[in-house]
Amino acid sequence: MEYELDKMIDDTIPRIIELIEEKKYVKARELLLEFSEVDIAEILEEIMEVLGVEKTIIMFRTLPKDVNVEVFSYLDSDEQVAIINSITDKEIHYIIDELPFDDMIDVLEELPANIVDKILEKATKEERKQINSFLHYPEYSAGTLMTPEYISLHKDMTVEQALAHIKKEGMDSETVYTCYVKDTGRTLLGIVSLRTLVVSENDVMVRDIMRTDYVCANVHADQEEVSNLFKKYGFLAIPVVDNEHRLVGIITVDDILDIIEEEITEDFQKMAGVAASTEEYLDMSVWKHVRNRFPWLLFLMFSLMVTGLIINQFEDLLSKAIVLVAYLPLLMGTGGNSGSQSATLVIRSMAVGDIELKDSVKVLWKEVRVSFLIGFSLSVLNFAKILLIDGESPFIALTVCGSMLIIITMAKTIGGMLPLLAKKLKIDPALMASPMIASLTDMVSVVTYFFLASLILGI
Amino acid sequence: MEYELDKMIDDTIPRIIELIEEKKYVKARELLLEFSEVDIAEILEEIMEVLGVEKTIIMFRTLPKDVNVEVFSYLDSDEQVAIINSITDKEIHYIIDELPFDDMIDVLEELPANIVDKILEKATKEERKQINSFLHYPEYSAGTLMTPEYISLHKDMTVEQALAHIKKEGMDSETVYTCYVKDTGRTLLGIVSLRTLVVSENDVMVRDIMRTDYVCANVHADQEEVSNLFKKYGFLAIPVVDNEHRLVGIITVDDILDIIEEEITEDFQKMAGVAASTEEYLDMSVWKHVRNRFPWLLFLMFSLMVTGLIINQFEDLLSKAIVLVAYLPLLMGTGGNSGSQSATLVIRSMAVGDIELKDSVKVLWKEVRVSFLIGFSLSVLNFAKILLIDGESPFIALTVCGSMLIIITMAKTIGGMLPLLAKKLKIDPALMASPMIASLTDMVSVVTYFFLASLILGI
Repeated sequence: MEYELDKMIDDTIPRIIELIEEKKYVKARELLLEFSEVDIAEILEEIMEVLGVEKTIIMFRTLPKDVNVEVFSYLDSDEQVAIINSITDKEIHYIIDELPFDDMIDVLEELPANIVDKILEKATKEERKQINSFLHYPEYSAGTLMTPEYISLHKDMTVEQALAHIKKEGMDSETVYTCYVKDTGRTLLGIVSLRTLVVSENDVMVRDIMRTDYVCANVHADQEEVSNLFKKYGFLAIPVVDNEHRLVGIITVDDILDIIEEEITEDFQKMAGVAASTEEYLDMSVWKHVRNRFPWLLFLMFSLMVTGLIINQFEDLLSKAIVLVAYLPLLMGTGGNSGSQSATLVIRSMAVGDIELKDSVKVLWKEVRVSFLIGFSLSVLNFAKILLIDGESPFIALTVCGSMLIIITMAKTIGGMLPLLAKKLKIDPALMASPMIASLTDMVSVVTYFFLASLILGI
Repeated sequence: MEYELDKMIDDTIPRIIELIEEKKYVKARELLLEFSEVDIAEILEEIMEVLGVEKTIIMFRTLPKDVNVEVFSYLDSDEQVAIINSITDKEIHYIIDELPFDDMIDVLEELPANIVDKILEKATKEERKQINSFLHYPEYSAGTLMTPEYISLHKDMTVEQALAHIKKEGMDSETVYTCYVKDTGRTLLGIVSLRTLVVSENDVMVRDIMRTDYVCANVHADQEEVSNLFKKYGFLAIPVVDNEHRLVGIITVDDILDIIEEEITEDFQKMAGVAASTEEYLDMSVWKHVRNRFPWLLFLMFSLMVTGLIINQFEDLLSKAIVLVAYLPLLMGTGGNSGSQSATLVIRSMAVGDIELKDSVKVLWKEVRVSFLIGFSLSVLNFAKILLIDGESPFIALTVCGSMLIIITMAKTIGGMLPLLAKKLKIDPALMASPMIASLTDMVSVVTYFFLASLILGI
């Protein structure tokens, strides 16, 4: 199957729905099982939307148990709750038992508390203790990402013994490729990759091939730091240790892909002046959308009110040359757009590590030159337009275009510097994006424009 | 070493530079080798910036050959060129020979043509042919990401034979964890993970444990599609096939992390109205910055000019109630900010697949409700402020606040719908972000405001 898969799924869904409506579950099952578990989950979500919970549960139950466990882990939490509420305790127990530990924790974190209690009741005391400790790591910490399921080796094993041990344990594919060597006190001594074990001679000792220069994360480290480690070093998994350097779990790269997505989404939200949230757009209630967007709009409004106050001071000037108002959107808009360009480029470059605080002067110098060139070209174009097309006086043209040059230069400089200043003040640079910059440059624009106007027009 | 590593590196650099200046290369070497290859590369880049190429090369040469190969692959292309230009042909040959194939292709793609020729001269005819074919895949295609270095198995091997074969080949860690089963015509039959091989009994046949329901990418597939496959399925590697379904290479997850970053950066750039570029901010020339930013500013200027034209039509109204001008930035700014919020949320949700075209009505309905609530609250607040603090007449307050409610509702609706419309028209939704939305809503804002003003104030 190549990547036209999405189309295949879209084509198959109506056929499966038809089959379910005709109660031909065996035929529908056959069709479903042609797909991988993550695709089946996607298809079931569609089925639930169209046919409701009951028929989806019947479909779900016809699938093999081991397929269902994985399918379950890929469903959204709404669908997971619907299924948990409709299946027997025995079935719940089976799913929870068979899920990889980190997936189970993910599921439990999303489910409502009463459902979690229902599930925890069925776990053994030992399991419950472990689950609870994982559920209580701070949100967005390495602790919530890790799984305690990893291969432990002893430094005095031979390669042959190590491979036999791995064969006996038989882990999930994602967690088996790096093995962890611990001393008796659970302190991490070193790591050895399955590759190294497989290509080494049988009688070599693990202690002689393990790497001790591994990188690890503290259990309380922020998920963003962890994902940066993966990006920098290209690991498949990294060990997570507590403050006493005892190994408590590992984080695998497949979970990091999701985290990178989440972190980026957060950046996008901040840059649009929206409170960060991991909830999906359509799942979020209208109230929550309002709550997430209102505060920034209100905050930005204050800066816009100041702009209004400034204009008020120039009422006299304006009433004498009302034509100036017509060029106000051009100047404010271009200022905002210019500033946004610079701010976004700098914010993004800081996020990927291309620009650091110490580069501030270089950024400033670059923005000054870029903005002068852009400002100059756009001003010349506008000068011609105002003179020839609008038929205004050269003084008006000079006022507008002089302002434009100054505004673009200042907007780009502010846009480039503000994210760096934010970083210096330990504020998230992403907050200094378009809406913030645009509202600030509005102020700069009107002051520049009216000041220049009174100077050139002599009003 | 935990994640305070970055600080350690920053602390070490001045000491190493000092040691090099005192010509204590052996001591500097000792310090350097405490770090991993990717960190050494970072440190060497700093050294080159401070001490120049010559001393960096001397430092580079003191490092063990096998370390150097990897360090080289992590350097920026500027530094790579500097090194290639300063080391002997024999050293170049060694580095190129030992680099993993995909890293070598990356290096060659970045280097200037004359350097590439210099390197190709030293390759065997067979090598040259393969390198050339890799260099000629279209940019951003799966072909440019893949490596031809993978483990091939035959379906009639036993597990024992397969493991012995892997031990003999001894691949890089990143490419060994999935093995590929081909028939004699190079057609891909199935895949088998190293994990499966290790946990299976020795006499089991490869054909009985290989998975035939694998997902693969066409060699001409876009890198974004490929990275979506990784995100969806959590693979460590995927096979790449040509149009005849022959296996031509594999792509590993560590390269995908870089691609995800690149794709996101591209989105950020588009959303700020800047032409997409993978070049680093500081490396890019002033001219290129201007070229990347000028066209969108010019384009947006036309929409802002239309806004100016509209204002011109209302000159009469304005001269009679000049106070209206003072509220113009408030209305235009809030409209822009409201629209940006919606546009960014919808664009991002589309990018991660939470919103599809068929959800348009749901998005519309959500935005209408959210914007009405926000618009209503902000209007009430402003009504009070204009009446009580500004001391304007209720008619002015009503004009401004009525406009605000309409503008916010329309801005959010436009902001939410425009990205979906773009998708429908096969334009990149990311282009419909803040600058575009803000410039469009400006138009809507002035028309609404002045229309309402002439209605309420009766001018």
